[in-house]
Amino acid sequence: MIKLYNVADIPVDEILARAAADYSAYETGVKEIIENVRKCGDKALYEYAEKFDKAKLKSLKVTEDEIEEVFSKVSAEFIGILERAKTNIEAYHTRQIRQGFKYETENGAVLGQKIMPVEKVCVYVPGGTASYPSTVLMNIVPAKLAGVSKIYMTTPCKEEGIPANILVAAKIAGVSEIYKLGGAQAVAAFAYGTESVPKVDKIVGPGNIYVATAKRQVFGEVSIDMIAGPSEILVVADKGAKAKNVAADMLSQAEHDRLATAILVTDSEKLALDVSAEIERQLKLLPREEIARASIENNGKIIVADNLESVIDIANKIAPEHLELAVETPFDYLEKIKNAGSVFLGYNTPEAVGDYYAGANHTLPTSGTARFSSALSVDDFIKKTQYIYYSDKALAEAKNDITAFAESEGLSAHARSVSIRFEEK
Amino acid sequence: MIKLYNVADIPVDEILARAAADYSAYETGVKEIIENVRKCGDKALYEYAEKFDKAKLKSLKVTEDEIEEVFSKVSAEFIGILERAKTNIEAYHTRQIRQGFKYETENGAVLGQKIMPVEKVCVYVPGGTASYPSTVLMNIVPAKLAGVSKIYMTTPCKEEGIPANILVAAKIAGVSEIYKLGGAQAVAAFAYGTESVPKVDKIVGPGNIYVATAKRQVFGEVSIDMIAGPSEILVVADKGAKAKNVAADMLSQAEHDRLATAILVTDSEKLALDVSAEIERQLKLLPREEIARASIENNGKIIVADNLESVIDIANKIAPEHLELAVETPFDYLEKIKNAGSVFLGYNTPEAVGDYYAGANHTLPTSGTARFSSALSVDDFIKKTQYIYYSDKALAEAKNDITAFAESEGLSAHARSVSIRFEEK
Repeated sequence: MIKLYNVADIPVDEILARAAADYSAYETGVKEIIENVRKCGDKALYEYAEKFDKAKLKSLKVTEDEIEEVFSKVSAEFIGILERAKTNIEAYHTRQIRQGFKYETENGAVLGQKIMPVEKVCVYVPGGTASYPSTVLMNIVPAKLAGVSKIYMTTPCKEEGIPANILVAAKIAGVSEIYKLGGAQAVAAFAYGTESVPKVDKIVGPGNIYVATAKRQVFGEVSIDMIAGPSEILVVADKGAKAKNVAADMLSQAEHDRLATAILVTDSEKLALDVSAEIERQLKLLPREEIARASIENNGKIIVADNLESVIDIANKIAPEHLELAVETPFDYLEKIKNAGSVFLGYNTPEAVGDYYAGANHTLPTSGTARFSSALSVDDFIKKTQYIYYSDKALAEAKNDITAFAESEGLSAHARSVSIRFEEK
Repeated sequence: MIKLYNVADIPVDEILARAAADYSAYETGVKEIIENVRKCGDKALYEYAEKFDKAKLKSLKVTEDEIEEVFSKVSAEFIGILERAKTNIEAYHTRQIRQGFKYETENGAVLGQKIMPVEKVCVYVPGGTASYPSTVLMNIVPAKLAGVSKIYMTTPCKEEGIPANILVAAKIAGVSEIYKLGGAQAVAAFAYGTESVPKVDKIVGPGNIYVATAKRQVFGEVSIDMIAGPSEILVVADKGAKAKNVAADMLSQAEHDRLATAILVTDSEKLALDVSAEIERQLKLLPREEIARASIENNGKIIVADNLESVIDIANKIAPEHLELAVETPFDYLEKIKNAGSVFLGYNTPEAVGDYYAGANHTLPTSGTARFSSALSVDDFIKKTQYIYYSDKALAEAKNDITAFAESEGLSAHARSVSIRFEEK
């Protein structure tokens, strides 16, 4: 059974507590893998593929022929779905594309900010049961829109090959090249480059604890996206919400993994009780019942608060990855939300709408990091370069201020670099 | 003497080599400090202030009276300089302020992106010789423009108090509160909060190796800005550049610290030789000669290339923090620059113009990270929240696509969260 609380009876710390992975046991092993890939290059990659993925690879890269072949294995219907999802994702992320700026001052100085894409990006896609074509779209489409010229996807390749859905999604999204590498060794290969694998500027995408640990370790050598914690949903609901829908939305999060968290906060005690019963009823219908039940029993919570204002206050403290506002006037409450990765508004917008389809990104800040970080976006694939041009007049007018400022900081050579331009020689 | 190379005689790896700090020796000590601050709170902070800063503090916070008092110690002239610099920094960073977006689809779905400030930020300002009022402005102004409601500054406070220039700059920039804390203990206090120190969402600002190590360790609990490596300048110059100016600009970087790097790449052998001689001449005039000389001799380089095109190619590979384009048509070459933190255009724009005054930020990506990261900006103090509203019609139209997509990924509860909304109950 999911745990039920009155808000007065549960300490804030307990509401905010999150399940978290412990990386420390993996540090040494991952470090060894990275060192080995740096030292032995491709040879190490072939060996790891055999050891971890049980695959004797002939090449590290997926050929165009292999991609063409899988297109015949995927239904036209599924390709249509991928294409419609891609169109929606493009519609949303296109609006994130930014222009630089440039301006001139009265004395002839010109300043500006140039927006440029990161040149080379690797999108890591996990293998196994967590092999999600939706993730392929959500990572590649924003990179493409940002103008990244080389988008490499990598995913573990078992004996039976890479899942057709993944290859097709990558191709539809606009991938440049696909590699058959998984785990920490894939991260190492793209961070440092090998004979066959290009060194990139940024590595994005989810992965298991080895991948996450490797991303942390190569951070600085390359950029990485966030390291995601377990997935989480907070449903804020009023008495108008249907218990069966709220329960279904919570279970859609719970089925991800045992560490996933689903919380309902409501001002309606009746809804709280009904959702609790519905969760029990629906759990039994789920193919992934065992996982969902573990998540609900370990991390699930239903909290009854006095009114919606205090519900919103709790939501802002939790700073959830996914926030559903299953209330009558959701846009009014959206105004009050300060911290959330993605907000699903109204009774009829289950999280799954955003996970797959609506167009907003599904890579979101977990574990309360929505206080200071954001969904994956076009911004993650660009960089901004500042520029400054000073005319003779601008420098003459600024000369005294700059030299005095520099001298006040004890940096005479800074001051001299300005004043020397006014010296005879 | 600075080392001179012909581009053909220096391997790319050697051009790209960077001095780097080794953090590993500090990890354990910093971890202990953080643990102690988490456990003992204010008490630990008072003890560390006495131990490391030799200061018996009466309070951790600077009072309004203390701030008022220092205003009388700072010249009206210097206050004027700070105010003019602030005006320029505002003019540049105001242009970085972004609006969210919102759109509606034909079937009544509404999607958008809300831009909100991070709520609480701590700006760390180093003490000692690296106590720079320019850094205060460069960190606080963008936070203020982003709309951060609580901007806390912290800086070590020795027996003689916090430097007046720092306090005045903070007040002019619009700080909320100032704290007398330095080192790893300051980072720990603002990451976790104590009785007197507020927990923040993000910690920014430069610091010594203890501060940098602490920022790395608390990353995740709070957000941090980049961890800066040693400062670096690459001057690209053609034969029109004056050797004395180029040398002065290189030395302005070299005086920062022994690990700083100044490189000139030019297509003019004459300029290369003249700059080399000028560096020797000017080094002797510098109060910080010893530091600058160590930097020039250890890390300085002058590289002669065949033509400006290959010079620009080297610049893009180096991805320098500061890039001067001391060439006749700098805006033409700006077009070709792919990787640089900040670009200084033309013969008359020494880096110092940007360090203090022009308006662009001086917190920049070092060590080649300009490939994927950017100057500190208003973007570092905001977060973006996605939102999605689906109308009944929008959900009905998307239902089949979403459920099929979810089922293809084996996530039945995701599919059910959509389909259940169309079931009778």
